[in-house]
Amino acid sequence: MENFEVRILGCGSALPTLKHINTSQVVDIRNKMFMVDCGEGTQLALRREKINFNKIGAIFISHLHGDHCLGLPGLISTMGLLGRKSPLHVYGPADMESVFRPMINYFCSNLEYKVVFHTVDTTKHALVYEDHSLTVHSIPLKHRMPCCGYLFREKEGLRHVLPYMLERHEIPLSQINNLKSGKDYVAPDGQVIPNDILTTPPTQVRSYAFCSDTRYDESIIPYIKDVNVLYHEATYADDSIELAKKYLHSTARQAAEIAKSCGAKQLIIGHYSQRYNDESVLLNEAKEVFANTKLAYEGMVVKVS
Amino acid sequence: MENFEVRILGCGSALPTLKHINTSQVVDIRNKMFMVDCGEGTQLALRREKINFNKIGAIFISHLHGDHCLGLPGLISTMGLLGRKSPLHVYGPADMESVFRPMINYFCSNLEYKVVFHTVDTTKHALVYEDHSLTVHSIPLKHRMPCCGYLFREKEGLRHVLPYMLERHEIPLSQINNLKSGKDYVAPDGQVIPNDILTTPPTQVRSYAFCSDTRYDESIIPYIKDVNVLYHEATYADDSIELAKKYLHSTARQAAEIAKSCGAKQLIIGHYSQRYNDESVLLNEAKEVFANTKLAYEGMVVKVS
Repeated sequence: MENFEVRILGCGSALPTLKHINTSQVVDIRNKMFMVDCGEGTQLALRREKINFNKIGAIFISHLHGDHCLGLPGLISTMGLLGRKSPLHVYGPADMESVFRPMINYFCSNLEYKVVFHTVDTTKHALVYEDHSLTVHSIPLKHRMPCCGYLFREKEGLRHVLPYMLERHEIPLSQINNLKSGKDYVAPDGQVIPNDILTTPPTQVRSYAFCSDTRYDESIIPYIKDVNVLYHEATYADDSIELAKKYLHSTARQAAEIAKSCGAKQLIIGHYSQRYNDESVLLNEAKEVFANTKLAYEGMVVKVS
Repeated sequence: MENFEVRILGCGSALPTLKHINTSQVVDIRNKMFMVDCGEGTQLALRREKINFNKIGAIFISHLHGDHCLGLPGLISTMGLLGRKSPLHVYGPADMESVFRPMINYFCSNLEYKVVFHTVDTTKHALVYEDHSLTVHSIPLKHRMPCCGYLFREKEGLRHVLPYMLERHEIPLSQINNLKSGKDYVAPDGQVIPNDILTTPPTQVRSYAFCSDTRYDESIIPYIKDVNVLYHEATYADDSIELAKKYLHSTARQAAEIAKSCGAKQLIIGHYSQRYNDESVLLNEAKEVFANTKLAYEGMVVKVS
């Protein structure tokens, strides 16, 4: 099966610590690489993970708190120094271009590639990005400023032709594309051979949802129904549910409630408050609700399946 | 003797690597802390070095290339989250406030302390900062944009009173401040006891010069005469002297020539191009000219004496 994985570069919250840096991830779908959020230190994390900076085609920014985007100017500069020529597309909330364009103009004046900002309406679940094999949709989140998550989903592929059935029915190779797209085969003598005995269904599509930062919000559940992997912020444990309410963050238990309600196969929690030296309290509270929960950590690779 | 030391947070050049991050240093003089330059990753380095962010009173920025200042917005934000109340003074070239103020206004809107930008004329050797025990002067450098180094120098202290001489001459304690400031003692019987037999000279003042980024430029020598420690950029080895000329950087040998000519006691080189995996070539070339040269590294502590 083609690769689809998420690499955690940083999963701390606003205050960087020796354990967790600010938020950033790389989503690698069939060797196409996308970044989600870009806190300070992201480029150092890319170095550690030995990721080629210029394989990253697009960056999706959830919101404009510094811990989710202040790594952008340095990353964009370094991409230029590393010889990037292809445009970099950056998707994010409305203010993004007005905040970052002056910095880029000042600090990255000799870029030989274009930085193209695309405004995402963070209040809507809408298509943000599409290519021949995947889509990215926004997921409206509720935080202290305009904020959205992102849903990466493979497109439905073609049906798989069964070679031994082609042989048995003496079907010419020229018909393969028709069979893959679901058409029946009509033999020269007029006999119709139904597609579903010649092929098997397309590989099931896989999806990944990034939801950070957000308060507990059930309204996102329909958008992330049956997602394979859900990354959901879990800034606090039950002991600090009042802080979660106050700052529009979630507890680990609330993240797990969302995972359970949307039918996720796996939950990854992150964006830990620096008050939790030992995050097992967060993991345990989440697991009480949703067993297949894991703690994010810097360098973690999550297979989406 | 009171402490005076420099801690290297980052000593790489524009491209951060796994070995060297962007430029930043902390100068600790008598427990007063100053930062010089603030590349991306500076706040993580402060964490590693267990330095209290809010002990830093002022930041001196050499120039507005990203690798020397892009850590400012994140650092300023984190200082706020850590409860800073006292103003932060930031000294640097003319454009600094217009470049960073909008970022700070956007990303650090709830600061409970003031960020005060001070423009430094990078073309002049002039007093930039002064308090009761030290001065900081700018050192005009020649780079691809307005740029200056900084000279930290203790002020001349008071003379040291010799307690056994006080006793011998039955000098009352009320006279100590007069003696420290160099006055002779006049006994009740009119006898004058000259100051220089009652005291020893003030401790010799120590100084530290930060010179990065710059091409080889002998005109700075008078400003850094007899400096105790000189940090001078050494981006390239002899093999790349043409690149040094083109990009207005220095070779290690040139850094050593400056150290030798100004009578420095010790030279620290840094700002290595990422092309040198093994910096011993830089060290060896510098040592051919100036023996007491050391390579900067992240976490290095240099005693200024």
